[in-house]
Amino acid sequence: MHKKLFIPGPTEVRKDIREAMNFPMFGHRMPETTQLMGEVADKLQKLLYTNNFIVISTSSATGLMEACSRNLIKNKGLHLTCGAFSDRWAKISKACNKDVDVVEYEWGKGTPASDIEEKIKTGKYDAVFVTHNETSTGVLNPLKDIGEMMKNYPDVLLAVDAVSSMAGTEIRVDDWNIDVVLASVQKCFALPPGLAIASVSDKAMEFSAEVEDKGFYFDFQAFKKYWDKAKQPPTTACLNLIAALNYQLDKIINQEGIENRVKRHKEMAEIVQNWTRENFDFFADQNYLSPTVTCIKNTKGISVASLNEELGKRGAVISNGYGKLKEQTFRIAHMGDITVDEIKWLLGEIDNIIS
Amino acid sequence: MHKKLFIPGPTEVRKDIREAMNFPMFGHRMPETTQLMGEVADKLQKLLYTNNFIVISTSSATGLMEACSRNLIKNKGLHLTCGAFSDRWAKISKACNKDVDVVEYEWGKGTPASDIEEKIKTGKYDAVFVTHNETSTGVLNPLKDIGEMMKNYPDVLLAVDAVSSMAGTEIRVDDWNIDVVLASVQKCFALPPGLAIASVSDKAMEFSAEVEDKGFYFDFQAFKKYWDKAKQPPTTACLNLIAALNYQLDKIINQEGIENRVKRHKEMAEIVQNWTRENFDFFADQNYLSPTVTCIKNTKGISVASLNEELGKRGAVISNGYGKLKEQTFRIAHMGDITVDEIKWLLGEIDNIIS
Repeated sequence: MHKKLFIPGPTEVRKDIREAMNFPMFGHRMPETTQLMGEVADKLQKLLYTNNFIVISTSSATGLMEACSRNLIKNKGLHLTCGAFSDRWAKISKACNKDVDVVEYEWGKGTPASDIEEKIKTGKYDAVFVTHNETSTGVLNPLKDIGEMMKNYPDVLLAVDAVSSMAGTEIRVDDWNIDVVLASVQKCFALPPGLAIASVSDKAMEFSAEVEDKGFYFDFQAFKKYWDKAKQPPTTACLNLIAALNYQLDKIINQEGIENRVKRHKEMAEIVQNWTRENFDFFADQNYLSPTVTCIKNTKGISVASLNEELGKRGAVISNGYGKLKEQTFRIAHMGDITVDEIKWLLGEIDNIIS
Repeated sequence: MHKKLFIPGPTEVRKDIREAMNFPMFGHRMPETTQLMGEVADKLQKLLYTNNFIVISTSSATGLMEACSRNLIKNKGLHLTCGAFSDRWAKISKACNKDVDVVEYEWGKGTPASDIEEKIKTGKYDAVFVTHNETSTGVLNPLKDIGEMMKNYPDVLLAVDAVSSMAGTEIRVDDWNIDVVLASVQKCFALPPGLAIASVSDKAMEFSAEVEDKGFYFDFQAFKKYWDKAKQPPTTACLNLIAALNYQLDKIINQEGIENRVKRHKEMAEIVQNWTRENFDFFADQNYLSPTVTCIKNTKGISVASLNEELGKRGAVISNGYGKLKEQTFRIAHMGDITVDEIKWLLGEIDNIIS
């Protein structure tokens, strides 16, 4: 039996999206690719409220996190960490031999804009790396506040991991002054995995042009060079996934509507949050609760593994806590194309199992 | 009208393969992934006659070329170039800030093992980078000879780009002493693009462990770490493409048979080669003709663009010459799941157009 995915990625993929990947092949240097990628870029700009350059990368989002580390640090970078994925981004920068400072927040805490300001005031940093939605703890950081604060520091770049928030909550790139925001498509976009996208500001692009040792695959300049030639990728791209993204962006923008999609995510989150309040507790600071994934503190000491096994028999799967939070927490993802009714059904099944 | 792809990648993709990508989604940390990736690795080992570790990378082959540059050079690397893609590999190493020597052969020439031996005898190199099948010129380099020669130099690693030859011609990794051989799946494997694979020897793995500044996404050690845990990828992988590869490897190994597949490629190549002799001339040195793509010298001064336009109306597309070889040459790919009959049909249409 198929288990419906209530895990924070990959999320459930609709049949019509999977079918959108199935078409007779064409070449990545043919006009069909120019047409397809142009359409995708236009729609992503709309989704993100920006005119910035769009990078379409055949990789997971981790690849574009590494791209940020490689392209946006010449002297020193600043990482704010508050969970497994923000931690990992700092490690990636270090693995790229970049000099970074890391400000660690306790897992479950958010990152206030004022704290970041304290650090970047020093003038030491080329770029600050922020995780919008920390998938491991269910924390949504205050990106709007952070971006607005950073308007006062025009020499520092803002790079944002929005892997598990983009297309599930509002991100206004231009208004919020975001130089790079990246995501993969198997979370709130509800597509199969294998594709990552980002918007990159002119400022970030100019900075990157002066950085050495970027390699080729994740060099923003390579993306721009091939884009300017013919709106094509620097190397053979995952055209079938890009076509599925094009199809899904149509649905998001013209059928559901961006604002309605954000509203639905909020509604699903509130249902899970209310249920959490009644039955368990939050792992995350309640000032920063994520609209796409809730991390639940296992206050009842249930066996999460057994709960998931039982859910599996009923056709669903949730996530155990990440890494060191295993069994101490569990996570319910309310992201992508999952509906309010499906979330209610899931919670009913969990109630039924643990009661 | 769909144009059948006689270009050197992406190649034509069968409908049943595209359908193999369409299944209800599962998670990359679920047992389904362990099962799938384990099967794919076993089959790739069979295809490559090796027990070496298999890397399954969500990227184009360029990503794994960069992985070789990053993982296999500590002091100095040696690049042999004889066309656009071997040139580009040398550029990638340089973009990764690696110290490399580049021995340039005229485009269209092959790289004899004895020439390589002259260079590596000096003891200066950690690794030598060889392009098995140079897609831009239709040259197949003598990989067996090169590998056998390198047995005498056990301290030097052999890295091979087999992007447009793997699954179309014989590659015996263990017998031929190949430390890393990489390919993408949209060429002779005849799958949609977005996935690359490699086999990596223990020697290469041990060497890589001592190299710094590898980043994360293309660090062979990261692949190994997650594989050893649960035969899973280090980051969210393109599971649908991996499933299609699993399906296609079954067809290759158990239905067509590896040897028959190699034989079919050889037969298609001979048909195109005979046609070339009768009508035009080869761009490549005839001692090194590729079994998967033929680069034809445009001795008649036809307009390749017009030929392709006319072919398009008849439902086919070939490739113009690559880069500086545009219009001076054109390329017919005879790789992947294209049949002998389809090749004959294509040549008939070309005869008909240019006569």
